[in-house]
Amino acid sequence: MYFGSDNQTGASAQVLGMLTTANNEYTHGYGDDRWTHQAIEALKTLFECDLEAYFVATGTAANSLALSCMVQPWEAILCHDSAHIILDESTAPELFTGGARMLGVSNGEGKISPQHLQDYFQTTGTDYPHNVRAAALSITQASESGLVYTPAEISTLSAVAEKNGLSVHMDGARFANAVASQQCTPAELSWKAGVDVLCLGATKCGALCAEVVIFFNKDLAATFTHRRKRGGHLLSKGRVFGSQMVGWLQDDHWLELAQHANAQAAKLAETINTIDGLRLVWPVESNELFVIMPKGLAAHLQDAGAEFYDWYVTTLPPNITIGEQEIFARLVTSFVTQDAQREAFCDLIQNYFAVQ
Amino acid sequence: MYFGSDNQTGASAQVLGMLTTANNEYTHGYGDDRWTHQAIEALKTLFECDLEAYFVATGTAANSLALSCMVQPWEAILCHDSAHIILDESTAPELFTGGARMLGVSNGEGKISPQHLQDYFQTTGTDYPHNVRAAALSITQASESGLVYTPAEISTLSAVAEKNGLSVHMDGARFANAVASQQCTPAELSWKAGVDVLCLGATKCGALCAEVVIFFNKDLAATFTHRRKRGGHLLSKGRVFGSQMVGWLQDDHWLELAQHANAQAAKLAETINTIDGLRLVWPVESNELFVIMPKGLAAHLQDAGAEFYDWYVTTLPPNITIGEQEIFARLVTSFVTQDAQREAFCDLIQNYFAVQ
Amino acid sequence: MYFGSDNQTGASAQVLGMLTTANNEYTHGYGDDRWTHQAIEALKTLFECDLEAYFVATGTAANSLALSCMVQPWEAILCHDSAHIILDESTAPELFTGGARMLGVSNGEGKISPQHLQDYFQTTGTDYPHNVRAAALSITQASESGLVYTPAEISTLSAVAEKNGLSVHMDGARFANAVASQQCTPAELSWKAGVDVLCLGATKCGALCAEVVIFFNKDLAATFTHRRKRGGHLLSKGRVFGSQMVGWLQDDHWLELAQHANAQAAKLAETINTIDGLRLVWPVESNELFVIMPKGLAAHLQDAGAEFYDWYVTTLPPNITIGEQEIFARLVTSFVTQDAQREAFCDLIQNYFAVQ
Amino acid sequence: MYFGSDNQTGASAQVLGMLTTANNEYTHGYGDDRWTHQAIEALKTLFECDLEAYFVATGTAANSLALSCMVQPWEAILCHDSAHIILDESTAPELFTGGARMLGVSNGEGKISPQHLQDYFQTTGTDYPHNVRAAALSITQASESGLVYTPAEISTLSAVAEKNGLSVHMDGARFANAVASQQCTPAELSWKAGVDVLCLGATKCGALCAEVVIFFNKDLAATFTHRRKRGGHLLSKGRVFGSQMVGWLQDDHWLELAQHANAQAAKLAETINTIDGLRLVWPVESNELFVIMPKGLAAHLQDAGAEFYDWYVTTLPPNITIGEQEIFARLVTSFVTQDAQREAFCDLIQNYFAVQ
Repeated sequence: MYFGSDNQTGASAQVLGMLTTANNEYTHGYGDDRWTHQAIEALKTLFECDLEAYFVATGTAANSLALSCMVQPWEAILCHDSAHIILDESTAPELFTGGARMLGVSNGEGKISPQHLQDYFQTTGTDYPHNVRAAALSITQASESGLVYTPAEISTLSAVAEKNGLSVHMDGARFANAVASQQCTPAELSWKAGVDVLCLGATKCGALCAEVVIFFNKDLAATFTHRRKRGGHLLSKGRVFGSQMVGWLQDDHWLELAQHANAQAAKLAETINTIDGLRLVWPVESNELFVIMPKGLAAHLQDAGAEFYDWYVTTLPPNITIGEQEIFARLVTSFVTQDAQREAFCDLIQNYFAVQ
Repeated sequence: MYFGSDNQTGASAQVLGMLTTANNEYTHGYGDDRWTHQAIEALKTLFECDLEAYFVATGTAANSLALSCMVQPWEAILCHDSAHIILDESTAPELFTGGARMLGVSNGEGKISPQHLQDYFQTTGTDYPHNVRAAALSITQASESGLVYTPAEISTLSAVAEKNGLSVHMDGARFANAVASQQCTPAELSWKAGVDVLCLGATKCGALCAEVVIFFNKDLAATFTHRRKRGGHLLSKGRVFGSQMVGWLQDDHWLELAQHANAQAAKLAETINTIDGLRLVWPVESNELFVIMPKGLAAHLQDAGAEFYDWYVTTLPPNITIGEQEIFARLVTSFVTQDAQREAFCDLIQNYFAVQ
Repeated sequence: MYFGSDNQTGASAQVLGMLTTANNEYTHGYGDDRWTHQAIEALKTLFECDLEAYFVATGTAANSLALSCMVQPWEAILCHDSAHIILDESTAPELFTGGARMLGVSNGEGKISPQHLQDYFQTTGTDYPHNVRAAALSITQASESGLVYTPAEISTLSAVAEKNGLSVHMDGARFANAVASQQCTPAELSWKAGVDVLCLGATKCGALCAEVVIFFNKDLAATFTHRRKRGGHLLSKGRVFGSQMVGWLQDDHWLELAQHANAQAAKLAETINTIDGLRLVWPVESNELFVIMPKGLAAHLQDAGAEFYDWYVTTLPPNITIGEQEIFARLVTSFVTQDAQREAFCDLIQNYFAVQ
Repeated sequence: MYFGSDNQTGASAQVLGMLTTANNEYTHGYGDDRWTHQAIEALKTLFECDLEAYFVATGTAANSLALSCMVQPWEAILCHDSAHIILDESTAPELFTGGARMLGVSNGEGKISPQHLQDYFQTTGTDYPHNVRAAALSITQASESGLVYTPAEISTLSAVAEKNGLSVHMDGARFANAVASQQCTPAELSWKAGVDVLCLGATKCGALCAEVVIFFNKDLAATFTHRRKRGGHLLSKGRVFGSQMVGWLQDDHWLELAQHANAQAAKLAETINTIDGLRLVWPVESNELFVIMPKGLAAHLQDAGAEFYDWYVTTLPPNITIGEQEIFARLVTSFVTQDAQREAFCDLIQNYFAVQ
């Protein structure tokens, strides 16, 4: 009953198998190998366009390095108040950008809206160099609240961003889940909707450690190789990333893994919605569930070996409050979540309420 | 009719005179001179305590260098949403702290309250090193809205800060005006109320360029001389700052200058309050006035040679809105503001409304 | 005939096997897993002491993060003129230290000597904060020239360092080869000789990507977890490093791999020494050979598929010059180098000279 | 008998007078004032070209901000081993450049020669992003050893720099002395000889605190205003610098001050050259003298109230050694040095040797 995080799994058999195959070859170092080259070609096919792509080991590295190519040290990055880049990545963005500023603009809602951006621009001074100019917008897909941005929503945000001189970054740690959740292509969810740079994560959805920074706007990539090396993020054995990504992309493997995780989340939500004592804070659109539950239930579940997090309450819908005897729990499903473990978890919930 | 800023004046005769006297001596460089030593002694007397004090040329340098001694690069600084350090000093704090984070917490009010701090601590994760820990609180005295914090208010904020492991910084660019506004001593408005580090500015109130970083908490000063030198802020001719500060502090000169500026602001506010078409957004407690006025009046005044700023609207009281035909103006008085110029300005206002 | 670099191999079967085993488990993230814990215990056993150990993916990350714990941004790091950290890691040390300075002090010799350090201290000003104070010494083991520092040499260097207030860092990218080359223990080559922090690399000697920063001086580790996270170097799936390191350390596997590589280098050197047209620039003490060879031979070998680098000539013994028709080649053996491939390479050399 | 430094004086009467005049005006802040504008026009006239010019308070700020416009954080700056920017400005260049590297290349000589640059380029790897690419050359005029670069020497160095993709910075803390020393114009000593950016210092030669970064290559200035503000170096009362510079440049005042200082140095050198027990280490070409003198004499002089420094011995001509009973003293003359004080100093020297 592991709903702690989708990063508590290993790699899928297909991904690990490709890494094992790659292990036994002689190759040049630093990404000059056939696995890296093949992975980049696969990304071009997947996204139906030309692009530049660079691999790193962590989402924090991917996001921070990407953003460092998009802003100057005296500029700002706008993002959701609960974005991983502003809450969960220490001050990595500041380190890699040389001290640019992170600004949350979502004002308590589950996704950034065009109005949030408008509000920001209307209340912020433009007396440079005194004031800090926003130069990039970062959107998380799926969002910090497990919601997905539609292509139309991204397009609208991108249009506001572009009009104000911002380029658009997408933190795609769960991009696969967002695609699996909608009837659209990876291209439609990214560059066709105005995204300049996508950090696509495989780690949470089937790989061991493989993140890729994809520049649809290739001009922004000019300094990336220097920044990656200087950040200690250029692996000598580049095949480690390349082979995982080849395995992940092959035969829509990535999409199947994400569909599995999403389906498990949907089924879990279905059960939760039938129970009076539980409240889902946000609609379940990907593989994360945010549930307000009695502290007693949380203890009951954890005593039985279930894993999940007591989450931050930075962002809540306006009509929701958390009682003193409640917690705000985050449940995450993954490509390895089994029906049996989900059902056991639901049984525990139902047993708990049966005896209250 | 110059109400643009209190930094648009020169130095007072007393301050300039002391600089002129100091100019004609031989002294050692880099602050090893009698003027610097004498200024530090005068500060100890003024604040009734032992302290360490270091001079720099600008408020931005003073604030950023001070804050860099108070937080690690992976920590955060809490301040008012409209603080000068977060709105008007580019990303200087990020540069000097090595990339710490600036966080506005005032949520639209004119001063930071203990509740703002409590709200911050209750909604922020503490899963380090992922989350960013707040390590310093910065208060501006007088505030961004021209308000003053009382000793009791500062003490309460400091207590909340201390309880949560934050040290307390005060941006005292208009500290003199804040003292002049209240029946209390510099000590009561600073270290006695829990302030660890005060950036005391003379530039806006009688000097040409003289700011001093005062460490009441001397432990925090351990790396300051390295940081100042490395920031290019160690003047070879240290007497430039020392002599101005000696002149400024002598015979309560600083206080008289501030009292004059405050008195002019009070009289200006008195007139404005008598006029129906004008609204003071905040009470006038120091030498700044924030006035909502018709655009027509603003043009009328400026055509007649008056100087003032169309200001940012980041922070407004909840019941205040600015009409489409209005602007949010900032008026600042200074030690050189004359009755005659203030009265001429008021006459222009009254003439304008007389013919509407 | 792959002598390009010891980073052009995959992992050994034992290392990869352990990673595969670890892959199939549920574990917590971010290093809170049994593999990471077990690896740290194995390091304590290997080094016969208590220590703190943190894993990262690259040598550049390991070195830069380690050094950032050892110096302030206004201090300097002394190292060999050809150290990897000063020549081959971009300005990563500057990024992670917040702008400390790198200083090469070896003055053309193959290893740093106590005299180099003495010369540095005798000609450098100590007028702080103007001058930059050296605060760390970095030694590379095996050295940039393929030489090894003996325990006695390290002790002497450490003593000079300590006397002058420097802590001691060892870049151990080829530490395994250095141990294999001498009759001594890992402890004798590190903390017993005065090393405070060792960056131990498994990547060049049997792992895919596994470097560990080992703090023998645990006080220096106080900020490491913040720095690693902030640098994007904290893997969510910590088992990736932990399991490789467990496999690498088990049953002296690391030592056997290094002994194999060294033995191949020694045999290659033996052949080279028999040939008049070739000159070994430095004694072969680990798994690197630096050979001055005719350009014609280099082309002959490369045409036949041999891989090796035309190397930098930063550091040469005083009596050695490189002719216009010669190159300064670096040959590196590894744990996968086979007798057959080495012999084929030597045959090509002998054939070349036979027909000259 | 003050030969400690040319920064131990105040401002000249003409410079202080202009500051006093400017003090009594109302002006806009942040350099939008008639003094700043007039100073820039005067610089254009002096240098006979269009240019961009920005004022700051210290040489360290001027140099570091200028260099930060010329290199990326992963690039290097080449300079003399004893350059002020590498020895005496802490790690300010690293702070402002975001961590670029400082590299001394002069190898013990008194000025950088084209051969030094050639040697650097021939022994440095170009495998980017691993290796660090040099992107700027910095020359000090007058040099660290009191020597001056001729227009022809600068042109030759600039040509080598340009050929290798480096832009050229000149640290002109004593540029006035260098002009006074040669029969040439400021233009011939700067942009006509290939200098892209000149940091012209008035502080050591008649001002209180006034340094100006002059971009002859205006493309390099694109980010300067952001960098200056962010560094805390944008004075609100810009007239402080502007008026000093107007006074300094008016009627060739700067040149007369420098000629006076140089003439005093020349006369002092004349006397020293007549005395057997003293050795001038370098020819005296500006206002600095480097003298090897007996420790006994140094004590004798200092006891009598003379001021001068026991200097670093980083750079010495190859044939010079300093005995155990000797010191390497630096003597500096200035615009206030009087014949009487110089003669009293020389008398003390002669008295000392008379009784030995």
